[in-house]
Amino acid sequence: MSEHTRPPDYIRDPHRPRVVIVGGGFAGLHAALGLARLPVDITLVDRRNHHLFQPLLYQVALAVLSPADIAQPIRSVLRRQPNAEVLMDEVTGIDVAARLVTLRSGAQLAYDYLVLAAGATHSYFGHDEWEPFAPGLKTIEDATEIRRRVLLAFELAERQMLEQGWHPPLNFVVIGGGPTGVELAGAISDVAQLYMRHDFRHIDPAASRVLLLDGGPRVLAAYPEDLSQKAQATLRNLGVEVHTQTHVTAVGPGWVEANGQRLHAAVTLWAAGVEASPLGRLLGAPLDRRGCVLVDDRLNPPALPEVFVLGDLAHIEQDGHQIPGVAQPAMQMGDHVARIVAADLDRRPRPPFRYFDKGDMATIGRMAAVAKVEWPFKAHLRGFPAWFTWVTVHIFFLIGFRNRLAVLINWAWAYFNFTRGARLITGDQHLPGWEEQTQAPTTERKPNPVD
Amino acid sequence: MSEHTRPPDYIRDPHRPRVVIVGGGFAGLHAALGLARLPVDITLVDRRNHHLFQPLLYQVALAVLSPADIAQPIRSVLRRQPNAEVLMDEVTGIDVAARLVTLRSGAQLAYDYLVLAAGATHSYFGHDEWEPFAPGLKTIEDATEIRRRVLLAFELAERQMLEQGWHPPLNFVVIGGGPTGVELAGAISDVAQLYMRHDFRHIDPAASRVLLLDGGPRVLAAYPEDLSQKAQATLRNLGVEVHTQTHVTAVGPGWVEANGQRLHAAVTLWAAGVEASPLGRLLGAPLDRRGCVLVDDRLNPPALPEVFVLGDLAHIEQDGHQIPGVAQPAMQMGDHVARIVAADLDRRPRPPFRYFDKGDMATIGRMAAVAKVEWPFKAHLRGFPAWFTWVTVHIFFLIGFRNRLAVLINWAWAYFNFTRGARLITGDQHLPGWEEQTQAPTTERKPNPVD
Repeated sequence: MSEHTRPPDYIRDPHRPRVVIVGGGFAGLHAALGLARLPVDITLVDRRNHHLFQPLLYQVALAVLSPADIAQPIRSVLRRQPNAEVLMDEVTGIDVAARLVTLRSGAQLAYDYLVLAAGATHSYFGHDEWEPFAPGLKTIEDATEIRRRVLLAFELAERQMLEQGWHPPLNFVVIGGGPTGVELAGAISDVAQLYMRHDFRHIDPAASRVLLLDGGPRVLAAYPEDLSQKAQATLRNLGVEVHTQTHVTAVGPGWVEANGQRLHAAVTLWAAGVEASPLGRLLGAPLDRRGCVLVDDRLNPPALPEVFVLGDLAHIEQDGHQIPGVAQPAMQMGDHVARIVAADLDRRPRPPFRYFDKGDMATIGRMAAVAKVEWPFKAHLRGFPAWFTWVTVHIFFLIGFRNRLAVLINWAWAYFNFTRGARLITGDQHLPGWEEQTQAPTTERKPNPVD
Repeated sequence: MSEHTRPPDYIRDPHRPRVVIVGGGFAGLHAALGLARLPVDITLVDRRNHHLFQPLLYQVALAVLSPADIAQPIRSVLRRQPNAEVLMDEVTGIDVAARLVTLRSGAQLAYDYLVLAAGATHSYFGHDEWEPFAPGLKTIEDATEIRRRVLLAFELAERQMLEQGWHPPLNFVVIGGGPTGVELAGAISDVAQLYMRHDFRHIDPAASRVLLLDGGPRVLAAYPEDLSQKAQATLRNLGVEVHTQTHVTAVGPGWVEANGQRLHAAVTLWAAGVEASPLGRLLGAPLDRRGCVLVDDRLNPPALPEVFVLGDLAHIEQDGHQIPGVAQPAMQMGDHVARIVAADLDRRPRPPFRYFDKGDMATIGRMAAVAKVEWPFKAHLRGFPAWFTWVTVHIFFLIGFRNRLAVLINWAWAYFNFTRGARLITGDQHLPGWEEQTQAPTTERKPNPVD
């Protein structure tokens, strides 16, 4: 009998096994929902109280959507599922021999099955000291911080122009040309070129610069080359300066050093690298160089058939390629865990996981996108058709009718009125590096400000 | 010639006087909008980039609405008004002799007219050390902090019940029985009794307690006595424990001391007092004991006809009563400033300000309210008619169609689905005083959590 037909002899109570799910992202939530009708007791543990629809997080960062439009309390999603409970807590240890998860308080949760779906976070390649000057985009707090910085840069420039007749260059530097970097750069350009046209009296927001830096030969390196070229052309049409083969060697307050040159940067954003959650290390299983746990096609690390690792935390090869760390495979892995547990309970062999790739896409500013469609037909789309596909798919996968309605209204509002609904600056009014470049006021205010 | 018919001889350029407005609340924004068609140049200065619809702020604090639903960038509101510019900055000085406003950078703005509408903030009656334990509700940050604390209290109780089989009492203590305190207490009770019913497995949110403490003999002291009685009865029906004649003598982490007794408080909220913005002191004009500037019926402090003080910062008597610091008189004062400036420019006598009171109202939880209607008819309303009036009036006065739509949808959603759209916990997971009351875990987790 192979490992994958092994009966569930490791289950303490075969009539009602306990499933502990760590992480309420796409993978963990889909696992919980998929297990709804099985005779199991589920505890979903997450540090946050909400599931986040990360593909739209950049739209919170650029003031199109409100945080609550793309976040749902995990507890609400599972409120009518009696076999599931939600625990807002932090996992600090995993004892795979005793099958116990340790929580921050020291309390322990026993499991028969462990589903580890703790995701990934941004990586500064060993330069964590860059983080204060170049925030990344993973959480709601990251998004509102980026929103604060981008909107504040325009406000500070207007203020300084009015009070001193001069301001530092309004450069927005995005490091990393993957989907997040491309989406951020396109959206900042939209804000500057279109959405703030009538709002300022002393500065011209359209005169600001958006620079997208990538170390590789092209943006969207994971996409087919023709779509990379289209994306690059679309970005350039929007006024984004795309610099490939550009290696960032240092980041500081108000500047970025790339290819030996120091660029001024009013705001710097980090979209260059991700690394797996440190929880992957707690299993003692082999990891890849980014910290992802190597799992087989039953989603198990070697010799741990009761442990499933899913989503961005898992490293799975399929047809010689690693399955990418995006939403679609995460959801499919979550669904598949439920199928495996059902097979175990029926004492059937565990079905293998196979990622069904429907395609991939990224938006580039207002009404443009690139899409690699794999299903229901194969195509490379760009421009409006790609954008329309993107809108439809993203609305469809949002959890909750209220959120879909809110997002649709906000999108319609932004597109037809050229204004953005969530242009809030909260928190303090400091921008790293801005004040250092600002001299003391020398001229008094001119009498009439509206010339 | 009396002071109020004085021609505008203090205007440097009578053909295009400069108006500096400090504060983008109801008063300042209405002044700017009212001056749109006059030959003046307006600079509106605010520390924030947004105008806030404060009457609905408590709904952000209780997760019904998102911050962006009730906030508009001041710059957007005035984007099509060419005689107005917006400056996000802080006023640090006013030179009434030279007619100059000093900003944080040291730069100065010259004015011919100064409109001071800097509002009020909460006051802890000399006990600022209470603030970390009992936040008040004035800004978006205050509202999201209150939301964090209230939602976190339920999460921590569930966590501790699950991990240790015990949790500290879930008491929510609201200090101050004015409209804000009544609205907060009613809304917390709604959340606990109705909106979280199916969300927890180990605690019963409905078993939490909401205590409303007030030093005076009745809640809503500014309202007629019959409405106070109705409000109190409605609150008690909702399960709120109303304690009048209850003086708070100390506030600490996790507790409140009132009438010599120490109450446990998982979350304490402050709605007890307000004081005027410190900017009022910069005029050198007489103030009342809360720091409000005493102004005449032309909204001027003594001997400063080119300075107008409006809104919560102004102390104006009318028919022997002080005009209350709420939205309606603030808007009317803003409108009136435009009338006075128009009169000056036409060399007509300045019209006196008279507050036209249309009534006042406060909601008490789901579908109940009290309203004192003064116009178009006189009535004391309560229950559903008062609530319906409240909904209509608040939707009407919200700035921006998008916001009205968003608020209507969120309200409809909350009322029909018993769920709240913005149940986000952001920031850290610390609740002052909670951990001190939590012992180390002694029992291991019970095997089946869903009993």
